[in-house]
Formats: sequence, C-alpha cells, structure tokens
Amino acid sequence: MASRPRSTEPYQAVAWHDGRLRLLDQTRLPGALVYLEINTLAAATEAITSMRVCGAPAIGIAAAYALALVAQHDRSNNPAALIDALHTASRTLAATRPTAVNLRWALDRVLACAERAAHTDGVEAARSAALAEARAIQAEQIAADARMAQAGAALIAPGSTLLTHCNAGPLATTSAGTALGAVIPAHRARRVIEVLVNETRPRLQGARLTAWELGWHGAPYRVIADSAAASLMAAGLVSAVVVGADRIAVNGDTANKIDTYALAALARFHALPLYVVAPLSTIDAGTPSGAAIPIEQRDATELLVLAGITLTPPGARALNPAFDITPVALITAIVTERGVLRPPYAASIAEAPAPAPAAR
Amino acid sequence: MASRPRSTEPYQAVAWHDGRLRLLDQTRLPGALVYLEINTLAAATEAITSMRVCGAPAIGIAAAYALALVAQHDRSNNPAALIDALHTASRTLAATRPTAVNLRWALDRVLACAERAAHTDGVEAARSAALAEARAIQAEQIAADARMAQAGAALIAPGSTLLTHCNAGPLATTSAGTALGAVIPAHRARRVIEVLVNETRPRLQGARLTAWELGWHGAPYRVIADSAAASLMAAGLVSAVVVGADRIAVNGDTANKIDTYALAALARFHALPLYVVAPLSTIDAGTPSGAAIPIEQRDATELLVLAGITLTPPGARALNPAFDITPVALITAIVTERGVLRPPYAASIAEAPAPAPAAR
Repeated sequence: MASRPRSTEPYQAVAWHDGRLRLLDQTRLPGALVYLEINTLAAATEAITSMRVCGAPAIGIAAAYALALVAQHDRSNNPAALIDALHTASRTLAATRPTAVNLRWALDRVLACAERAAHTDGVEAARSAALAEARAIQAEQIAADARMAQAGAALIAPGSTLLTHCNAGPLATTSAGTALGAVIPAHRARRVIEVLVNETRPRLQGARLTAWELGWHGAPYRVIADSAAASLMAAGLVSAVVVGADRIAVNGDTANKIDTYALAALARFHALPLYVVAPLSTIDAGTPSGAAIPIEQRDATELLVLAGITLTPPGARALNPAFDITPVALITAIVTERGVLRPPYAASIAEAPAPAPAAR
Repeated sequence: MASRPRSTEPYQAVAWHDGRLRLLDQTRLPGALVYLEINTLAAATEAITSMRVCGAPAIGIAAAYALALVAQHDRSNNPAALIDALHTASRTLAATRPTAVNLRWALDRVLACAERAAHTDGVEAARSAALAEARAIQAEQIAADARMAQAGAALIAPGSTLLTHCNAGPLATTSAGTALGAVIPAHRARRVIEVLVNETRPRLQGARLTAWELGWHGAPYRVIADSAAASLMAAGLVSAVVVGADRIAVNGDTANKIDTYALAALARFHALPLYVVAPLSTIDAGTPSGAAIPIEQRDATELLVLAGITLTPPGARALNPAFDITPVALITAIVTERGVLRPPYAASIAEAPAPAPAAR
C-alpha cells in the first residue's frame, strides 16, 4: 500500500507479555525495531532513565508494569513485607524521571490497589491486583487516546499545515497517541496538507520517532530544525502547533519537552493556535502552577556527543534542561479524553472529571 | 595560562599566503586545525559552498582572494580578456551563497579595481590591483572589527549573561569577529558572567566554532540546544542576545543564520535587547527590505545525516532554510564600525557613511 511504504507491521511501545514487561526500545528507532523483554526492576529503571521508553503516558504504563513485575517476583509471605517492597520499588521508579506526573500517578494507583488487596485478601491477591491495575491503566489509556483523537482531530481545519514537537504519537502512549493521535485521523480525513516535524534536539525524538510514526501512517511530513519553526510561521506555513504534555498544573501551566514554551510564545507572536493534547492523568492536582514543576536536567553528553562523536571542543560544558514550562496564557486549548478544555483553565480543569477509574 | 587551557596558537580563518588563498577548514573544527592551500577557482568555490569558510565577512574576503588568484593565474595578454575571465569567475563565486551580501560586495570591489587598472595600465597592473584590493578588503575588516568590538562591548553591562547564535567570532571575519568581537573584550573587562552558546542546528557552528573560539579566549560558556533559549530567557538567565548578520536591508531588516528571527521575537517577548553586530559592508543598498533577500535552501542531508549517520527513517524529507529574516522592529541596535545605529534604521542607515575605501 503506497501510503505505508516502509512497514505495515503493527508495533506496541509497552505491553505485558508472557509474564514480563515488553518495551519497544525507542532509542534504537528508526534504525531497528528492537523489543526488550524486561524481567527485573533494575532493567525497568534503566529503560526509563535511558529513555528507551518515552512519552509521559507510556512511561507511566511501563512503570506500572514494572511494579507488577516486582510484585510477581517478591517472595514475601506476609502482606506488610510485600507492600514494603512495592513502596521501595515505587520510589526507585518514581525517581527516574522527575517531570512527568503520569509516572508517579500510575505507581500510586498500582500501590494503592495492591495495598488494599493485601489487607483484605493477602499477598497473592495483592500480586494479582498490582498486575490488574497496571493492565487497567493501559486499557484506560487506550480508551482515552481514542476520545482525545476524536476531540483533537475536530480542531484541525481543512488545509492545515501542522507543526509538532518531540514525539506524542502511539509510541508515547502505547495506543493512538496524544498530539499525533489527533493529527493522524485529521490526515485520514484529508484535512492535513503536511506535518512539520521539529527534529527535537538533543534526543531527536521528532526526527527519529515522529517521522517514523507519521511515515508508518502515510502522513506527509518534513523534518525541520527546531530553529526553523519561527520563520516558517512568519512565512504562513504553519496553521497550528500541536503538542503533548508531561505535566499540567491545576492552573493550566504545562510542562513539555524543551522548546514547547518557545513554540507557544512564537505561536502567540504569529497569532497561531497552540493545542496541548494530554490525558487527564497528566493534570497534577498537587501542582498549583508551573513554578512547582521540577525540570529534569539531563546529562551534558546528550548535547555534546552524538552517536559516539563529540561535537564540541574538549572541556565544553552544556546546560541541558529536558523540559520547559508553557504558561497557561499561551495555550489555546487542552484536549483531554473528557473534551476540549478552554480558558480559564483553573475553572475548566477543576470542572473536568478525574481520570476514569479502571473497569474491574 | 589557565584561561587558555587548550591552545594559545593563533589562528587565521582566511589569509593570502605564499601566492595562494589559505583557509582554516571550519568543517574540521573543533577536532582538527587544518589549513587548506587553495590555488584554483574550483577549490575556492567548493570551499565556500561546503562552508569550509563561514561568516559573511570571511566569505567575502575569501572570495576576493579567490578572484585575485584567478587574476594571477590568467594567461591573457589583453585587458579585455582578463576582465572577461574575472567577470566569469566572479559570477561563479557569487552563486555559491546567495544570502550574504559581503560576498558580492567584495567581488564587485575587486572587479572594479582590476577593471580600472586594466584600462589605464594594462593586464599586469590589473593583476596587482586585484590582489591589492583583496588585501585592502581584509585590512579594512580588521580595522572595522576593532571599532565594532569597542562600540559593541560598551553595550554590555556588568554582570551580563549573553546568548549568541551560530558563529560570529574571529573565524567569521578573519579578525576580532562581530558578535564575539564585542563579547570577548567585555569578558576581559569582567562584565560577562557567561555566554550561552546556541548549538545552531543543523551545521552546529555554535557547538563547534563559537565554543572553540570562546574557549580559546578563556571566556566562560555553556552550549545549549537552540530550543532551550526561550526557557532560559524566561528564567532570567539571559541579559541580551548578540548576533552577527549576513545581509542588512536599507530599512534594517536583517538576514542571519536560521533561528535569529526566533531569538529576536523571543527577546522581544521577554523584553530583552537584541544586538546585531555587523560591518557596513553587510548593509546592501540594493535591498530595500527583508522581503527582497533570497534565503538559501540547503540540502536536506545537512539535517537528516550527521557524521555519516542517518538520523531519520528511510525516505524522510526535510525543509532546511539556512537563514531567516529578522524584521527591523525586533532589533534593539545595529553595531557597526561607524558606531551604534538605533531606530529608525531607515534614517540611521542612510546617514551612516559607506564602508571606508581601502587605504592605498
């Protein structure tokens, strides 16, 4: 089929498979489709830290399964010991990536379910409950993605040229994706002329992952340097900016991959809409505003070295924040599984229902 | 000396040496200090096209010497044939990079001098005149750099953290540089806390060249992703943005490396000054506004392939404009060798004296 020139083989970013956590290693894409079979907490922690799994929802799901894995492997005979082990593992997993809130949210859900089951029905029930809750989190994400895709695609006018940043596709949520979840059905409905893909330095998630996912879906795209976005806006080549989110404060301030704030400010400067597409699990009731969101500072080598080649002179230093905060005033709309939130966000977020509980 | 940890050996981007054009190959930096001895028009053309010499003034000087080289090697016995050969060579050289105006300006100067000498004193005089004019262009640039450095450094307040983009250092002008020409004396005067260096995708002139030049001068710097600039401005970590220019229209609109427009818009958004440092030869009397400046579109592989490694999936396309246009309204001041131009630029540019003629 001409629209899928490279592959029609379905792929899955995160899955529970054969009693293990299976991850599609995103650091190997687009060169190779490599699945990791993860059976230990250490391997799961390494995979999240090294960004083998990316995207706030996918990270949350992977961490939930990792906690289920810890529960399965735990040899405790009493509930307190099991819960203790899960708390320790949860703290280890939560520390891997500080900015995205879905990680902590998913871990808390698995912990709470295991704890409840342990107290009422004992250790075996707790082990089952942990896995069931992890599965439920993923099932909910699949359902949420479908609803976000519908609501988000409806915002995309015919003849649109969309700009996206980082990866907010199926890889990032394990299902339809957030930003790309909205873009792809709009493309299928022939409303998208082209997607401009910011390469997304330093980890190149746009050039590597978003380009690959758009190609997989047959959507027309071109990769651009992150620095070219502004002049393409000025030239009238951008209709809207569509991105995902790693954490949304209750006032609407949004943490997302570094550059999102720049794009939001530039979109405002050019009177273009900026849409954030994110599940309600990305909204953190414990974060009053963007100022309270910790920004992960990643290693300088991400910027200074590429594929083993040092780009900079000896002794060069770098500043490498992985995320930035887009103030709520720059966000046109936040697309969630419960509809499109509009300003004032403090009110629309407060009125949005909490993420649906798992159907169990 | 601790402030120059890596090298104290002087370097020269472009020189006339032993009857040849000598270029420091900027594509090999910072890994290796390789000088190219160029003896043919074809080699000079390749060096400019492949960005072995970068920076509008340095390109102009290199092209001027390349034309002198053509004059030296020409075997014509009559003035008309020599001038004809120089015109042909000039057109070839001018076509290498369409955006920077110093290239065409320098070629026109060498051509005009050779033509004048040919008509009055014959072919040998024309050959000498071509080389003398190329040398004069470089001598004027050295003098202009010194004056820009003084005027530019005076704009930098104590305790400044400066953001710069691409390379506008000694490599870019063959002397003190434009933007870095102002930054380095301000650093020596202890007014600069740090220089934030945009890596400058796709060719990484910031990470490779500016980092190397600042290190050479012992100036403290950190490399950042181009996409991190906005959030560092929001965090109060940027006092001013200082850049060079490739062409300035008579209304003040400025073409410079892609991202300059984004930085200018973001600087305005954060109420920060944007200083352009450029010699008067960068102002093109024939360009009424930015809309008339041709933007060089470079090959997609610059973006998609790095050091032989393909970053993107098979079949990926890219859009790779090398420059953008910063509208005059976003420029706080233009620092030239004849002082600091302020808005309204149409008037201040019209009043600025033309570039000094060569002292001969």
